[in-house]
Amino acid sequence: MDLPKGLAGVIVDETEISSTAGGKLIYSGYPIAELADSTYEEVVFLLWHSRLPMKAELEAFRKELVSEMVLPSESTRLLLYVAKEPQHPMSILRTATSLLGTTNNVKQDEPPKILAKMLTLIASIVRIRQGEPMKEPDPKLGVADNFLYMLTGKKPTLEHAKMFNTVMILHADHEFNASTFTARVVASTSADYYSCLTAAVCALKGPLHGGANERVFRMLEEIVDNDADPIEYVKDRIANKLKVMGFGHRVYKNGDPRAAILRDIAEKLAKETHNEKYFDVQIKIAAFMLEEKGLHPNVDYYTALVYHCLGLERDLFTPIFAACRTAGWLAHVMEQRRESCLIRPSSEYVGPKAREYYKDHYVTTKGDI
Amino acid sequence: MDLPKGLAGVIVDETEISSTAGGKLIYSGYPIAELADSTYEEVVFLLWHSRLPMKAELEAFRKELVSEMVLPSESTRLLLYVAKEPQHPMSILRTATSLLGTTNNVKQDEPPKILAKMLTLIASIVRIRQGEPMKEPDPKLGVADNFLYMLTGKKPTLEHAKMFNTVMILHADHEFNASTFTARVVASTSADYYSCLTAAVCALKGPLHGGANERVFRMLEEIVDNDADPIEYVKDRIANKLKVMGFGHRVYKNGDPRAAILRDIAEKLAKETHNEKYFDVQIKIAAFMLEEKGLHPNVDYYTALVYHCLGLERDLFTPIFAACRTAGWLAHVMEQRRESCLIRPSSEYVGPKAREYYKDHYVTTKGDI
Repeated sequence: MDLPKGLAGVIVDETEISSTAGGKLIYSGYPIAELADSTYEEVVFLLWHSRLPMKAELEAFRKELVSEMVLPSESTRLLLYVAKEPQHPMSILRTATSLLGTTNNVKQDEPPKILAKMLTLIASIVRIRQGEPMKEPDPKLGVADNFLYMLTGKKPTLEHAKMFNTVMILHADHEFNASTFTARVVASTSADYYSCLTAAVCALKGPLHGGANERVFRMLEEIVDNDADPIEYVKDRIANKLKVMGFGHRVYKNGDPRAAILRDIAEKLAKETHNEKYFDVQIKIAAFMLEEKGLHPNVDYYTALVYHCLGLERDLFTPIFAACRTAGWLAHVMEQRRESCLIRPSSEYVGPKAREYYKDHYVTTKGDI
Repeated sequence: MDLPKGLAGVIVDETEISSTAGGKLIYSGYPIAELADSTYEEVVFLLWHSRLPMKAELEAFRKELVSEMVLPSESTRLLLYVAKEPQHPMSILRTATSLLGTTNNVKQDEPPKILAKMLTLIASIVRIRQGEPMKEPDPKLGVADNFLYMLTGKKPTLEHAKMFNTVMILHADHEFNASTFTARVVASTSADYYSCLTAAVCALKGPLHGGANERVFRMLEEIVDNDADPIEYVKDRIANKLKVMGFGHRVYKNGDPRAAILRDIAEKLAKETHNEKYFDVQIKIAAFMLEEKGLHPNVDYYTALVYHCLGLERDLFTPIFAACRTAGWLAHVMEQRRESCLIRPSSEYVGPKAREYYKDHYVTTKGDI
């Protein structure tokens, strides 16, 4: 085995979609901070076409996406059964994504339609689990604005819509993260889009990947609910060799460029929704972790509070992450399909060698003849 | 990019489960040809525990597996809805695998229970789609024998049961093939077993991976139905740069060790079920491909005919493959979990560089201010 464990830092393929080289996140050549003020649909267009859309293209793309934000009645019918199961919403989303590809005409479906339906699917899971009626998309709103509307049931203010576009843009892609890499491996077998997305959801469900944002907020709740001292809480976790959630990242050693932008949004929303107590805890822990461990917060750290301030339950954070990331997954699936090459690595066998079945089988069954 | 495309030949991790090094397939140190006469449950025990079971362990393991071969009523209820969708059975299986993890208690479920339920799930999908009643497992039969019984509705003869055990053993594992690697990437995020298996099914669905056996039989049907000359048919495909299905393999350059064993089974079953016409075509094509292209048949080539002789529809071949391979997927998921290391590779960005959003955005929207 010559490669580092978990393929850390190993370049397994080329991509034109995004880069984290040098600790800087760029989408198709644009630094993420410059794109943060754009709209979600403009960034999706960029990720899919390697260029910004012209004004008319952007409006046509927005219209296409919003008009596709309606689920087939067959999907809704089955979703109503599935979404109420007493399991984690990511299990529900895994099944629902697969179902979407079972009830739709897989061969005809293309990325815009699939992305639009995934957003509605996720919003619907949230609404069904909260016992609220599903909302129809508003043809006058943007894509992220509509998603937020379908999630919360309220037409967002201009400021909230702008913030939510930023959140979705920041989560839209991140080169070869575990779920995107999973989607690419599946795409390399020539499987259909829904299979690629279902597999990506499977990977994002893992607590070491997408599940981290939920665990960040559980930590904040534990501290606030018990009126604990944040620094003592964190010291205690470190002393017990437990992970402090929301810090460090495989590819960012000097800070996650998304965290700084999300910090400002979390601060604003926390004030507005009277959640300053969580934000204060976050600031204290972040300062301590930087000073003591040299670790910066990652994308999950402030996102957790943003989602909470938007009124979302903790276990719905990762499905929202999935909604944002679907654009990136689809970009990578399209790129991988163009390669037409199966991803099939090799392994080094380190188990027992030169065993003889008939001899050993006789030994394991002896006394029996 | 220093690595070969598709990670071909790249050793990405160590494993104690199986090896294809030197073109020889071994499971935990035993050559596949020696294991072919064993039973499926003995080989599953071997893959999971790195040793053969003692007689009493094997009987206990068989009993445990067979006793778990019953689906929860909630799964059956939803399956009855899903399995009738007019989609490929692998789409149904993808959804059904995910559903199994939505309706069960994910945290308590361990590999024996999960494998047993997957076999029943797949047999049930086959039965529902054929409009036949589902069969309860027979506590006196072995695991593969029960699976064959639940698939066909008929208690297998001793000879058929023996053949089917061999087929399941030969398909049980194959180190880091695309679906197993997918399962390992998902396992590395600490996602649950059902998420890992669902993702593996997604990858196996791809025509470049598990979907190949189905395409082999489509080719045989085309030749037999049109009374075509097999050699002319193949020459024609090659001239039109089309793939001849069932030949060549990423890791076997001098022949797939499973194909020789499967050839004999295919021949016997073809005679018994009056399907010699397909077998004759296969022999002619195999001889031609070896002589003209130096290519040997792979595992899919004769398996396709075996499944046909067992009375299975073409589109059910890959779900049967999934049933056999579930044992290997679970072995690899358990091994990956013990590593506790996220698989997160890197990529080389080769897209446009140093773009400026504000400038380009102005250009794309000019005439509009």
